[in-house]
Amino acid sequence: MRSIGVFDSGIGGLTVVKELLDTVPYERIVYFGDTARVPYGSKSVETVQRYSREDTELLLANDVKLIVIACNTVSAVALEAVKETAQGIPVIGMIEPCVREAARSTKNNRIGIIGTEATVASKAYERGLIEEGKQLGKQIEVFSQACPLFVPLAEEGWTDHEATRLVAEEYLRGLKEEQVDTLILGCTHYPILTGMIQQVMGEDVRLINSGAVAAQEVRHFIDGRSAKSPVTDHLVLVSDVPRKFQQVGARFLGRAIPDAKQVQWKEAWVITRQAI
Amino acid sequence: MRSIGVFDSGIGGLTVVKELLDTVPYERIVYFGDTARVPYGSKSVETVQRYSREDTELLLANDVKLIVIACNTVSAVALEAVKETAQGIPVIGMIEPCVREAARSTKNNRIGIIGTEATVASKAYERGLIEEGKQLGKQIEVFSQACPLFVPLAEEGWTDHEATRLVAEEYLRGLKEEQVDTLILGCTHYPILTGMIQQVMGEDVRLINSGAVAAQEVRHFIDGRSAKSPVTDHLVLVSDVPRKFQQVGARFLGRAIPDAKQVQWKEAWVITRQAI
Repeated sequence: MRSIGVFDSGIGGLTVVKELLDTVPYERIVYFGDTARVPYGSKSVETVQRYSREDTELLLANDVKLIVIACNTVSAVALEAVKETAQGIPVIGMIEPCVREAARSTKNNRIGIIGTEATVASKAYERGLIEEGKQLGKQIEVFSQACPLFVPLAEEGWTDHEATRLVAEEYLRGLKEEQVDTLILGCTHYPILTGMIQQVMGEDVRLINSGAVAAQEVRHFIDGRSAKSPVTDHLVLVSDVPRKFQQVGARFLGRAIPDAKQVQWKEAWVITRQAI
Repeated sequence: MRSIGVFDSGIGGLTVVKELLDTVPYERIVYFGDTARVPYGSKSVETVQRYSREDTELLLANDVKLIVIACNTVSAVALEAVKETAQGIPVIGMIEPCVREAARSTKNNRIGIIGTEATVASKAYERGLIEEGKQLGKQIEVFSQACPLFVPLAEEGWTDHEATRLVAEEYLRGLKEEQVDTLILGCTHYPILTGMIQQVMGEDVRLINSGAVAAQEVRHFIDGRSAKSPVTDHLVLVSDVPRKFQQVGARFLGRAIPDAKQVQWKEAWVITRQAI
């Protein structure tokens, strides 16, 4: 039985795996977190594309039938790189399903998106939402905000800390002023901070968890094509020593996490003397 | 004329370069920031050692006469790995000079140290301070605190933000209660937050900037052994695309930064199918 391959820059993608375990419990998952090179969201498009190709190759070596990009940054800047590398294996990213859901959901046609610097700079959500809006006959306006401090706050577990509230108020002020009625959590770390983000935005704003929406897409995709008995022997791979991943991972996964294995790799610098 | 090689996981080491430019303006500097794999401080000892060896090889390929480890994490967990790789080229880390200065400086023999998770977990500062204290006939007590949010706050430039104050109060509370009279800024990012840390700790606590102390060590080391006319053609190398480094770097360096060049490298994954 071939597995669903899921990858992320590190630990955030476990919030997507959490949704998959609920949505398609009868599928085996191979997860790869690139914990030795995390984060991706503050790095360049070129570097994220290179890393994403390598991550995809690792999943392919584990005989996957479907690849889920459980990272909004990769989905925003390296979807094509992953598809090329995947050589015909289907690829589901975080953006397309989420864009369809948000465009359908908005009443006032004002949608906010928060994510990493790389995701926001890519404008991938804007393009998708405006295009999707056109097909629905809606003239959608999109307001974006990079929230780089949300990732370390989520990893520290400061979900209710006053400092987190101040950071959230600072980042979200502009989106509130623009009166968005729908806010896309465009980074797989952010579901950890859902409570605080909802408080700051107000109860009337609908938050969309990109991982949850993508898990529905996965269910549609594989429905009828797989065994229907729950599996539990999932495989978790990381590129750094698993210690810390194992500790923080349970909070992201919402349950005990299987023992992660470190992948063996080698980096060869191609460096000669630089011109001075 | 051979250069002084300086490396860090990314941008923080520029606060050390800033001190070197003031202290030994007649030395050419080759700086390497591993921006494609930053940060090191939340990664494992094994991974940081591997990266540090590769970083050292890169500097050696650029004909350096001295290596300065402008990263407390590397100094704490990979000093020996760097020395082995350097094959006889002298290596100056952040910890030894700082430990001597702090042990001499303390009046009440209570010293605080803040740094990354990896630096604090290593206990390298504790061991050094207690040993140094013995030689001075002082019974020194050391109190350590990891401050992982300080790095992204410094990079965001939120030096005076109320959220930064709350984070600093949370992290530094224990050290204040222990009434340390000396606090080591054990991460090269932290000098950016000196103002806030001093406010929270109170004016009576002496903050020690590990980079500034190490720069004095460099001056002693090379004194009399180098040309005495200022040089300006320093070389800055990074592993990611330099765009963001160039933007944020000027704030860390305290002046305009030379154009950074991206090093060419290649990573080869040694991955076969993992056992499921």
